[in-house]
Amino acid sequence: MSKKVLITEDLHPFLVRGLENLGYECDERFGILQQEVTPIIHLYHGIVVATRIIVGREIIERASSLKFIARAGSGMENIDVVYAEAKNISCISSPEGNANSVGEHAAALLLAIFHNITQSFLQTRNEQWLVEENRVHELDGRTIAIIGYGNTGKAFAKKLPPFNMKVLAYDKYLRNYGDAFAEEAEMKRIFDEAEIISFHVPLTEETKWMIDTQYLQRFKEQIHLINTSRGKIIRHKDLLECIHNGKVLDAALDVYENENLTSHTQEERNLFRELINTGRVIFTPHVAGKSFESKKKIAEVLLKKISSLS
Amino acid sequence: MSKKVLITEDLHPFLVRGLENLGYECDERFGILQQEVTPIIHLYHGIVVATRIIVGREIIERASSLKFIARAGSGMENIDVVYAEAKNISCISSPEGNANSVGEHAAALLLAIFHNITQSFLQTRNEQWLVEENRVHELDGRTIAIIGYGNTGKAFAKKLPPFNMKVLAYDKYLRNYGDAFAEEAEMKRIFDEAEIISFHVPLTEETKWMIDTQYLQRFKEQIHLINTSRGKIIRHKDLLECIHNGKVLDAALDVYENENLTSHTQEERNLFRELINTGRVIFTPHVAGKSFESKKKIAEVLLKKISSLS
Repeated sequence: MSKKVLITEDLHPFLVRGLENLGYECDERFGILQQEVTPIIHLYHGIVVATRIIVGREIIERASSLKFIARAGSGMENIDVVYAEAKNISCISSPEGNANSVGEHAAALLLAIFHNITQSFLQTRNEQWLVEENRVHELDGRTIAIIGYGNTGKAFAKKLPPFNMKVLAYDKYLRNYGDAFAEEAEMKRIFDEAEIISFHVPLTEETKWMIDTQYLQRFKEQIHLINTSRGKIIRHKDLLECIHNGKVLDAALDVYENENLTSHTQEERNLFRELINTGRVIFTPHVAGKSFESKKKIAEVLLKKISSLS
Repeated sequence: MSKKVLITEDLHPFLVRGLENLGYECDERFGILQQEVTPIIHLYHGIVVATRIIVGREIIERASSLKFIARAGSGMENIDVVYAEAKNISCISSPEGNANSVGEHAAALLLAIFHNITQSFLQTRNEQWLVEENRVHELDGRTIAIIGYGNTGKAFAKKLPPFNMKVLAYDKYLRNYGDAFAEEAEMKRIFDEAEIISFHVPLTEETKWMIDTQYLQRFKEQIHLINTSRGKIIRHKDLLECIHNGKVLDAALDVYENENLTSHTQEERNLFRELINTGRVIFTPHVAGKSFESKKKIAEVLLKKISSLS
């Protein structure tokens, strides 16, 4: 009997073809619901998920044959990695697959802020051609800090050399990570010097709401903020406050605290609306790592990691 | 009696201070009208303009003491350079001063196109969080062509190395201009290979309406178009046609045929509206070279060139 793998999302076909070549039998159940996974998980040798399916204790306890949990993309917050590994289930992710896309997206957001792309776009759509109001800012000579210097943080830093900025990086869990693209720095120095800050950290108990008023007020300069990691690392109520008081000049956010906008309470709707109404926030809908190209790259990375498991 | 210079625009004060140090007397007449310049031009040794004042035959004929015409920014289409130089009047421009700003802006527009920045922005403002509809495209591996490899074309090319593209450049008036940032290419090759095209040419009799349906249809691929040079090099009626027929996938335009939107005829209004309604055009209001930083750099370049005249 061949080993079965449950594929819960419509990933690049390269993955299924590759797994089949390795002798796996793939059940392609795209869009399968959480409650449908639990009763059948014991049949599977492996499961491939994105962010939708939560692979927590409940599923893992019943996963009597499971040998791997593969996450398409980066960020493992929907998988109970500690519990799974205690049960000898390998947990695999593929941040290498979408890092370049995230790096490009962060650069796109950075340039959009400094060159008034969205404001200009909105005004010209309304047949307003306002030159002085849209005078741009060059990046040359600015100081940018990258928080979290893993795959995506580094991918972003690699896009920055031609813009002649001072690039600082802080990573709590790395040592000697300074490289040709970024200078290793303590948070003290970042709070003192940074004009732009970009977050590239995973969502954990430690990083949840890490960015609040207290954190933001520690910056000496007024800052431009970019977040392409996870929405829940920022307390957006506090971000709004710091936009209003001028500490945060503008924010470009690919992620949000609750990205399911239709589920928003009245309070959540108001906050989202108020952020937009400041005219200083650009949202993109969590697509930084979701390039057409990364779909294939993620499949390649996962296949390679799964094939090296046995 | 000291030599007088007429300053027609509110430029960086560095220029006036510098000219005064050189012994010139500066008449700061910001916003002076065309018809006000003509009767007084004989009093001046030099005149500094941007794009608003047309220094044509009428003014030059009366400019009995004029020794230089200095243009803040790049593009000399508002100055009759041939006639002026025949009268031994030096014509100076300062493309070096805003080239970096234009290079950044073209990069901002390029990334905005590939990462759906404006579309995402518009949708999220309307509380729509659409992931699949905004899946992004990476630049990696794409072929981009730069038409006109002068100051701004080159400044743009210098921003591109980390995006791992094939960069081709064509310049009708240069020889052996290929460098570390771009490969010299004939138009034939560009029509065959380019997926993205960015224009960096001056407006002349030759380049006016250079980009029409015939030109655009010569591309083998469907193309993304960027224009940060002059609006009149593109026949926008034809651009609209080529967006409708699919040859042009999208366009990011910092310039337009008639940028004085309030002066538009009904026909012009309709065309501008139709371009916007395609959902495939991003406009910014001719600000690519108008950074806060370039204001100072332009003043420095002009001062240096004026001081080396005598």
